Amino acid sequence: MNQGKFITLEGGEGAGKSTQLHALAAALRARGLEVVETREPGGSEGAEAIRALLLTGGADRWSARAEALLFAAARADHIEKTIRPALSRGAWVLSDRFLDSSRAYQGQGDLSDADILTLHRIGSDGFLPDRTLLLTLPEEEATGRARARDGDAEDRIGGRANDFHRAVADAFGRFAREESSRVQAIDASGPAEVVTERLLAAIEDLLP
Amino acid sequence: MNQGKFITLEGGEGAGKSTQLHALAAALRARGLEVVETREPGGSEGAEAIRALLLTGGADRWSARAEALLFAAARADHIEKTIRPALSRGAWVLSDRFLDSSRAYQGQGDLSDADILTLHRIGSDGFLPDRTLLLTLPEEEATGRARARDGDAEDRIGGRANDFHRAVADAFGRFAREESSRVQAIDASGPAEVVTERLLAAIEDLLP
Repeated sequence: MNQGKFITLEGGEGAGKSTQLHALAAALRARGLEVVETREPGGSEGAEAIRALLLTGGADRWSARAEALLFAAARADHIEKTIRPALSRGAWVLSDRFLDSSRAYQGQGDLSDADILTLHRIGSDGFLPDRTLLLTLPEEEATGRARARDGDAEDRIGGRANDFHRAVADAFGRFAREESSRVQAIDASGPAEVVTERLLAAIEDLLP
Repeated sequence: MNQGKFITLEGGEGAGKSTQLHALAAALRARGLEVVETREPGGSEGAEAIRALLLTGGADRWSARAEALLFAAARADHIEKTIRPALSRGAWVLSDRFLDSSRAYQGQGDLSDADILTLHRIGSDGFLPDRTLLLTLPEEEATGRARARDGDAEDRIGGRANDFHRAVADAFGRFAREESSRVQAIDASGPAEVVTERLLAAIEDLLP
């Protein structure tokens, strides 16, 4: 049995990750592959329990450092209990967010990118996706989409200022430049079906 | 206002840490000090929520790596929300277990002592106690005391095999040898009042 492939979708809020994840999963299933759709934080029983701790409470419930440790703990559980077993049986795993989101979001605080990668090494042996698809949109379009979807809803992770989102987008762009064989930036504007075709093209070389 | 002192009590199960923590706190209060008694995992609202995740579920609920990250997250919150504020206002803080327990217990698995210290650096800037009092007992006596107290009760942290507890005791002993200015081994056998006197003598130099 061949090992499956691990694909992550990354990008700011409003880039269409969830919609595209379902569409990409459907396209892969149509090619006869078993596909597991998952997300972070969460994706396993333990990680979902940690997710509940992360997403509730006031903005100051967790320091940036405690938050980064909780994300790394959730990720270790997600990989061990959900991702690795699926890949081992030959399934493809698509995850809505993964390590790069921790690097882009928690890396804006007093934690360095090196620290976040160190947490991932200790927690999960530095396990990386086979391909990371970074959905990119012009800033105004992403903001509009996120607002249309969420209204005024805010939680501890969403609902932050524009310059924070700009710094996150810059960080994602840096990963795509510096780790270009793993991270591929995909234009997420235009009709959803067209974006899905772009995503499929970006993983064509991994298909059996 | 002088900064308070941070004292941790460490040792295997059955060494009498909880009893001695209360007795030591009472003795310090009798000298006019404000004393905060706390414990790990836990000691702050967020850390207690993480403690609930750590102590419930089956023995395989968390991998050693996820567990170490959760302990480090809880410790970061405990330090930020409880320990540092108390020390800043001049209070003494006594904690039943702290970093050395993570090193002695989680360090028995596939995590190195260096990894656990790295998690503590990233989570809490490597913050260390002013003095760590290691309560030591001959193995048979500790086992007998723990059994007398807990009966057959077991949780995810307690209730493990003898050679595990021996390895933990060896690790604690190593810390006392290698970090002798911070970690002092205290004979915990004999009447409780006598042990408390030994603990007081071991922090005499820190008293105002």
